[in-house]
Amino acid sequence: MADGPIAKLLEELARLPGVGPKTAQRYAFYLLNRPKEQAQALAGAILQAREQVHRCSVCLNLTDADPCAVCRAPGRDHGLVCVVEEPKDVAAMDKTHEYRGVYHVLHGAINPLRGIGPDDLGVRALLARLNDPAHPVREVILATDPDVEGDATALYLAKLLKPLGLRVSRIARGVPEGGDLDYVDEATLARALAGRSEW
Amino acid sequence: MADGPIAKLLEELARLPGVGPKTAQRYAFYLLNRPKEQAQALAGAILQAREQVHRCSVCLNLTDADPCAVCRAPGRDHGLVCVVEEPKDVAAMDKTHEYRGVYHVLHGAINPLRGIGPDDLGVRALLARLNDPAHPVREVILATDPDVEGDATALYLAKLLKPLGLRVSRIARGVPEGGDLDYVDEATLARALAGRSEW
Repeated sequence: MADGPIAKLLEELARLPGVGPKTAQRYAFYLLNRPKEQAQALAGAILQAREQVHRCSVCLNLTDADPCAVCRAPGRDHGLVCVVEEPKDVAAMDKTHEYRGVYHVLHGAINPLRGIGPDDLGVRALLARLNDPAHPVREVILATDPDVEGDATALYLAKLLKPLGLRVSRIARGVPEGGDLDYVDEATLARALAGRSEW
Repeated sequence: MADGPIAKLLEELARLPGVGPKTAQRYAFYLLNRPKEQAQALAGAILQAREQVHRCSVCLNLTDADPCAVCRAPGRDHGLVCVVEEPKDVAAMDKTHEYRGVYHVLHGAINPLRGIGPDDLGVRALLARLNDPAHPVREVILATDPDVEGDATALYLAKLLKPLGLRVSRIARGVPEGGDLDYVDEATLARALAGRSEW
């Protein structure tokens, strides 16, 4: 058990986020008990993704092509840019099938406690993109997370972008679809009240 | 996001036990955001473990040497064999630092519902081992899991091994160390009562 290759595998698996020794053990013995091809497929997928995936030069999303599939899509509205924190937010947004614009991925949010400022995020690339006369942008939707860091980032970007003469918007805050009102936390309910619309 | 290498990586990660699409995404973006060396180290550890790790010819535990480190250890009592279901049970048992005998790994338990019988487990190898006059075994400790399948397996092995003239024992059942008695389930408490020892 404390043998070399198993210990090494346990160690590497335990580096994954949220994976402790028990989960690493579970994954390791699963990989050791499955057909060899499956373990090789996982290792190959990791290597290939790490080799081929990089940031899109336009929107900074992770992609294996450049520009990425979204930035290349002719059916997309390139005058509408949705700013998100992480690549997974692009996936979440696209799953709605409601949004037909393009994206810009910041790869994080402003977080003074962790020493993350605008220069550590994809802000400069966003400005360069908005200033490019070849691709005029009409509106920027700020879709950073609805938490302190996401709000700070949205506020910062709004101040920075409004002078450029663009429409700048923030996604709506309120009660989520479905579920019970009495399970919604007070902060969300207060936001939903403050942001009520006339019917 | 639906791009080739990322989708492939998500698919392979989601095959791990207990990993759904969200966790796969978390692992994937973690691996893509870390230094390339870390992703390569994980892929390498998977490949190396799958290449070098096999079953010990004596005890069937997973190892990269043959016989495994435990079966080779001169300080171990080779006349005492602890039968467990899985390699991870060997690790758990060895962590106690109380047990100085050797092991035998069945790689499962008898489970008629899943069609797993004694022939699918390491029972034949255990018998061959116990019948080997070069390595006399004094006692077999049945340490299969304390559940229905583990008990059935222990019962089956006890019936099989007792005629060989060995001492056959089963690990004790009762309340676990530490914690509150009122949090212990009824079945465990009933077992602890029935198995009480005079003081």
